[in-house]
Amino acid sequence: MTLSPDAIRDAARAIASGVHRTPFTHSRTLSEIADAEIWLKLENLQYTASFKERGALNRLLALSTAERAAGVVAASAGNHAQAVAWHATRLGIEATIVMPVPTPLVKISGTEKLGAAIVLDGDSVTEAADRARQISAETGAVFIHPYDDEHVIAGQGTVALEMLADRPDLDTLVIPVGGGGLIAGCAIAAHDISPGIEIVGVETEMYPSMRAALAGETATAAGYSIADGISVKIPGVLALPIVRDLVSRIDIVREGDIEQAVHLFAEIEKLVVEGAGAAPLAAVLAAPDQFAGKRLGLVVSGGNIDSRLLSSVLMRGLVRSGRLIRMSMQVSDLPGSLANITGLIARLGGNIVEVEHERWFRDVPVRLAQIEMLLEVRDGGDGSRIVQGLNEAGYAARLVLPDSFSA
Amino acid sequence: MTLSPDAIRDAARAIASGVHRTPFTHSRTLSEIADAEIWLKLENLQYTASFKERGALNRLLALSTAERAAGVVAASAGNHAQAVAWHATRLGIEATIVMPVPTPLVKISGTEKLGAAIVLDGDSVTEAADRARQISAETGAVFIHPYDDEHVIAGQGTVALEMLADRPDLDTLVIPVGGGGLIAGCAIAAHDISPGIEIVGVETEMYPSMRAALAGETATAAGYSIADGISVKIPGVLALPIVRDLVSRIDIVREGDIEQAVHLFAEIEKLVVEGAGAAPLAAVLAAPDQFAGKRLGLVVSGGNIDSRLLSSVLMRGLVRSGRLIRMSMQVSDLPGSLANITGLIARLGGNIVEVEHERWFRDVPVRLAQIEMLLEVRDGGDGSRIVQGLNEAGYAARLVLPDSFSA
Repeated sequence: MTLSPDAIRDAARAIASGVHRTPFTHSRTLSEIADAEIWLKLENLQYTASFKERGALNRLLALSTAERAAGVVAASAGNHAQAVAWHATRLGIEATIVMPVPTPLVKISGTEKLGAAIVLDGDSVTEAADRARQISAETGAVFIHPYDDEHVIAGQGTVALEMLADRPDLDTLVIPVGGGGLIAGCAIAAHDISPGIEIVGVETEMYPSMRAALAGETATAAGYSIADGISVKIPGVLALPIVRDLVSRIDIVREGDIEQAVHLFAEIEKLVVEGAGAAPLAAVLAAPDQFAGKRLGLVVSGGNIDSRLLSSVLMRGLVRSGRLIRMSMQVSDLPGSLANITGLIARLGGNIVEVEHERWFRDVPVRLAQIEMLLEVRDGGDGSRIVQGLNEAGYAARLVLPDSFSA
Repeated sequence: MTLSPDAIRDAARAIASGVHRTPFTHSRTLSEIADAEIWLKLENLQYTASFKERGALNRLLALSTAERAAGVVAASAGNHAQAVAWHATRLGIEATIVMPVPTPLVKISGTEKLGAAIVLDGDSVTEAADRARQISAETGAVFIHPYDDEHVIAGQGTVALEMLADRPDLDTLVIPVGGGGLIAGCAIAAHDISPGIEIVGVETEMYPSMRAALAGETATAAGYSIADGISVKIPGVLALPIVRDLVSRIDIVREGDIEQAVHLFAEIEKLVVEGAGAAPLAAVLAAPDQFAGKRLGLVVSGGNIDSRLLSSVLMRGLVRSGRLIRMSMQVSDLPGSLANITGLIARLGGNIVEVEHERWFRDVPVRLAQIEMLLEVRDGGDGSRIVQGLNEAGYAARLVLPDSFSA
C-alpha cells in the first residue's frame, strides 16, 4: 500500500465493525474559555480507551493467513499494548507484548486480561522494542510497530475522517504527537476532504521530538511526563515527511498545563482523559490568540490514566484553583485554643480537612505549637478572607502557597 | 396538561434545541461483568452535567409572558439548581436559587456562575424549599419544583424516548429514584413505545423513600449519602401513582456498592459519574441474577461529584481492589534497617508510596520502631506475596486490612 486518502478510506471500511465510532461533542464551557468553538473527538471512549485500536486493527487485518498463524509481537507500555492485545485476541491471533520493567502495574495486568502473553524486559520502550524484534526474529511472529507502519498510520487517519464527516467546516485539527502516526494519518485524510484545513500538532515540553526532527535536530527528551502516551524520543520515519508537508506547526505545552487540562476534562466535561489526550486542550488554553474565533477539532486521544495519578491531579487542581488551601499559624499549646480557632474558621465558611501539629522543628517558643491546616473554601478570595479574620482575632495565621505560586 | 406519552413527545420537541441528545453507548466490559447487555445513557454529558435540564427547561418554556417577567425561584443543593439557573439565564428569565447552608462550596459558585442569584438558607433542602416558597409568595416569582410538577416529569421522560429510539429492543430500564420525576416520566414514555418493558428504580439504602411510600410507609431517611442527587425523604405526589402502576420494583443499593460503581465508571468507562448516576450500575452488579441475559438501559443521570470526593473514591477503589495495601511491621530503630526492607520490597515488585514511623503508642520494645507502609502492587495476591517474602527474610510484617475487609 501507499499512504493515500484512499488507504485511509479503506481502513475505515476495514475496521468499522471492530472499533467504536466515538462521539464528537461540542463543549460550550471550553469554547467560552478559549473564545473559539471546540469539538472533542472522544477516543478515550474506545474499548481499550485510546485511538490506538484503529491502527492496530488495520495492521492485523492486513496479515496473511500464514502471518496470522505465526502470531504477532509488539512493544509498548500502554495503549498500543492494549490495542494489539485486544484485537489480536478477538481475531484469534496469538499476541506477545513486551513491556519495559518499570511499566505501571495496572497497565501490565490490563494487557494480560485482554489475552496477550506479557514479557517484561528493558528499562524503556526502546529496549522493550529490541526484545520484541528479537522475539519476532526467533519465532516468526510479526512485529507490530506502534506508529512507523503504513497500515497503522492509515488506521489512525480514520479519526479525522469521522471528525470531518460530522463537522465538515472545521478550521483546525489539534492533535497530540508522539511517534506521529496519528497526526500523519489525520493530516492526509483531512487535507483530502478539506484542503484549506490547518493541522496543529502538540508535544509535551519533555519530549519535543517531532519539532526537533522537523528542524533536523534530535531533541533532548527524557523523564516521566504526565503525557506518557506521547513520550517518544524519535518520531516515525514515515510520519516525518507527511508532517513536514501537511502540518502547520507543532506546539509545545508545559507539563503543568497538561495537568490542568486533565483536571478540566474531569471537572467540566466529566471525562477521564490521560495526559496525551489532554495535550491539545492544554495547547489551546496556553496560546488562546493562536486559536481564537476558529472551529477547532481536538483529538482526545485516550483515557488511560492511573487512578492514583488522576486522584493527585484532582487534589492539585483544587489547590491550583484556590479551593483547597494550607494555612499555617502558631497557637498556644493549651486546652481550648484549637476549639476557638476551628469555631472561627467554621463561621468564616472554611471546611477543615486536616490539622497537623508541629512542636519541634519550627522556630517557635516552647509553649506555642505550630499548626498547619488544610481547608476547603469556595475560592482563593475566601482563603484570604479567612486568614484576615483570624488575624483580626489575634491569631498570626498565614497562607502557605504551593511552590508554583511563589515564583 | 396531563401526564401522557404525548406530553413527553411535546416536551422532546420543545427542549430539543436547548439540551444535548446525549450518547447512549454500549459497554462491552460492564456487559461482561454483569452477564447482560448494558447500554449507558450519558446524561452526565449534559452542559450542567445532569438530566435535570430537561425537566427544568420544559417547565420554563411553559411559563406565560407575565410569569417569565416575574422570574423563577427554586430550592436545590445541586443539579436542579444548575439546571434552572442555566436555562432561565439562557431564556432571559431572572432566577433565584435557595440552597441549604451546608451546600458544598463548589456547587454554590457553580450555580452563581450560571447567572442565578443565590440565597443560602436552612439546614436541608426541605427548609430551603420553605424559604423559596416564601420568596415566591412575596415576589411573585414562579416556584419551580424539582420533581413534583407535570412539566418537569414530562421533560425527564424524554430520556427514555431517546434510549428507545436508539435501542427499541431494550428489556429493562434501570433508573435512579429520588423524588421520582425521572422514573415517572421515563416509565410513561417507555411503556407507550414498548408495553412489555420492565422499569426498575434504584434508591440508596440511606434514602429508601419511594419503596417505603409504595408500601404506605415513611422511610427513615437521613444523613450524607454519596448519592446526594437521590437523597430525598418524601417522593413526589405526582410520581407515586405512576411508579405504582408502571414500575416493576425499586432496588435498594448499599452506599459501598454505589461508591464502587463510581470507581468503575472512572476506571473502565473513563467517565466521571456522581453517586446517583452510578446507582443503577450498583444495582445491576449487586444482584446479577435479576438482570442476567437482559438488554439493559441504565440512566447515568449526572456527573456532578466533588473533586475531593472523587479523589477519595479513586484511592479507596485501589484499596478495595488490593492494588494499594498498608503493611505494618516492627523494625530495629537503627541505621540501615529501612534500607534493607525497602530494597526487599522493590525486588518483590512493590512500589512504596508512604512510610510512617510510630515509636510511642504501640506496644513495641523501645529499640524497635513500628512502621506502616503504603504500597502500590499489581493486585491483592502480590500484597500477600510481599508480606510472605518479608516474613521469610525475618521481618514480622503483616497486612493492615481496611475496615470493611475485617468483617
